Amino acid sequence: MTSPTRPVDIVRVTGGARAAARDRAAAEEPLEIRIAREPYAVIMRTPGADRDLAAGFLFAERLIRSAHDLVDIHHCADAAEHENTVDVTLADPDALARARTRRRELTAASSCGVCGRQSIDDLARDLPRLAGAVVVAADIVARLPERLRASQRAFDETGGLHAAGVFSTDGDLLDIAEDVGRHNAVDKVIGRALLHRQLPLAHAVLCVSGRTSFEIVQKAAVAGVPVLAAVSAPSSLAIDLAERAGVTLIGFIRGDAFNVYTGAQRVA
Amino acid sequence: MTSPTRPVDIVRVTGGARAAARDRAAAEEPLEIRIAREPYAVIMRTPGADRDLAAGFLFAERLIRSAHDLVDIHHCADAAEHENTVDVTLADPDALARARTRRRELTAASSCGVCGRQSIDDLARDLPRLAGAVVVAADIVARLPERLRASQRAFDETGGLHAAGVFSTDGDLLDIAEDVGRHNAVDKVIGRALLHRQLPLAHAVLCVSGRTSFEIVQKAAVAGVPVLAAVSAPSSLAIDLAERAGVTLIGFIRGDAFNVYTGAQRVA
Repeated sequence: MTSPTRPVDIVRVTGGARAAARDRAAAEEPLEIRIAREPYAVIMRTPGADRDLAAGFLFAERLIRSAHDLVDIHHCADAAEHENTVDVTLADPDALARARTRRRELTAASSCGVCGRQSIDDLARDLPRLAGAVVVAADIVARLPERLRASQRAFDETGGLHAAGVFSTDGDLLDIAEDVGRHNAVDKVIGRALLHRQLPLAHAVLCVSGRTSFEIVQKAAVAGVPVLAAVSAPSSLAIDLAERAGVTLIGFIRGDAFNVYTGAQRVA
Repeated sequence: MTSPTRPVDIVRVTGGARAAARDRAAAEEPLEIRIAREPYAVIMRTPGADRDLAAGFLFAERLIRSAHDLVDIHHCADAAEHENTVDVTLADPDALARARTRRRELTAASSCGVCGRQSIDDLARDLPRLAGAVVVAADIVARLPERLRASQRAFDETGGLHAAGVFSTDGDLLDIAEDVGRHNAVDKVIGRALLHRQLPLAHAVLCVSGRTSFEIVQKAAVAGVPVLAAVSAPSSLAIDLAERAGVTLIGFIRGDAFNVYTGAQRVA
């Protein structure tokens, strides 16, 4: 069984004093995602929920559109690092062809998350425009970070993990994932919703620890999430993309105050 | 002139009250790095210090080893997004060949930062083993985060930027960079040091806001940084890599207390 944390030996320095101590660190290991037994991507992630992560990652990449596009995701028993390798079987031969093309495109221009998509137009294209009548009360928004934090078990041990929580508009926590990477935590909860055939998350509020980058907005938008709330600040591109995709983007939640960057009509 | 921040219109919610307001967000835009006019990578970054960022990124990728390997880095006047495109001219035909091979390897296994390197052995290979006699006093370590924070001008405006600061062992701030991405902030200061022929940073302490992932340690190690200090927690792989590379890794700096995960002999 993989654990999201790992024991480490440290030296604790306090003022002038030093003491050897035992602590726990957030686990970080590479996960290789194979499609039809061919390497597709390597993600640095906190072990656990690997199938959810792979499903959410491929969904955000638009290689799959629903659970119907997946035949199977399993850890590769024959891989050298079998706990760090999953193989995905796609239902649709076209999707498999797209995966191979995507790999070729990565040759031309590849890096973190952007995968060769270079303009905001490119990023926003292909996103559903959200138009639901979901409304969430301001006092519920203000309490999301503490509710998310209260459910972060691995964070309690390490202080080193990001979290993504799916909430109802009444503020009930429906699902949570933790990871050293913010993007992974989002992929895990969305991937799990996909595997459980709960997409789109058309009545959900997604709350993330930390800041909001364009990638977080992109992942929320393709999952049909109408309201995205973050403890900290969004980037300019996150705001642009939220505006285009019709996502309500909230940030800087502090006490009973917060900022609404886009889609303020969904906050009552 | 590019700016690290951008004005945004927000709705500020405080308790039951709403008010339209003007705020500033951290700028995030894609930077395309071309090598010999061919696309090599796209990085989401905060505009500014693009040449430093490109140099630092290619250095961490081990495509270049020193400023001698660079003939030129300039923004492409003829690109559609010329402020978001830099072209790099490499001195060494072998490095150019390596860049092309790297692009091909990315075809096989590509994602954030890892670039197909899948094991800790793979990551640690090729790293210099640091063995310097640098020592930094505990009270200086404890004050690094506040000194870093005091110099973060764009953070003051937005609350949304990470920082990396190069300090002397006496705690003097020698250089700082801010970015929406932690890795980019590190690439910017190391790239600048490379362009100014100040590598290796064999007597420096690198302090980063936020957490430490393996990538941050890898970038510090190849730049010869003996002491890496972070405000928050490291991941398990960051600790493993620091141990192998002989980097002193410090985290969780709070008041006069902090944790030393590896290389405690450099903390006095």
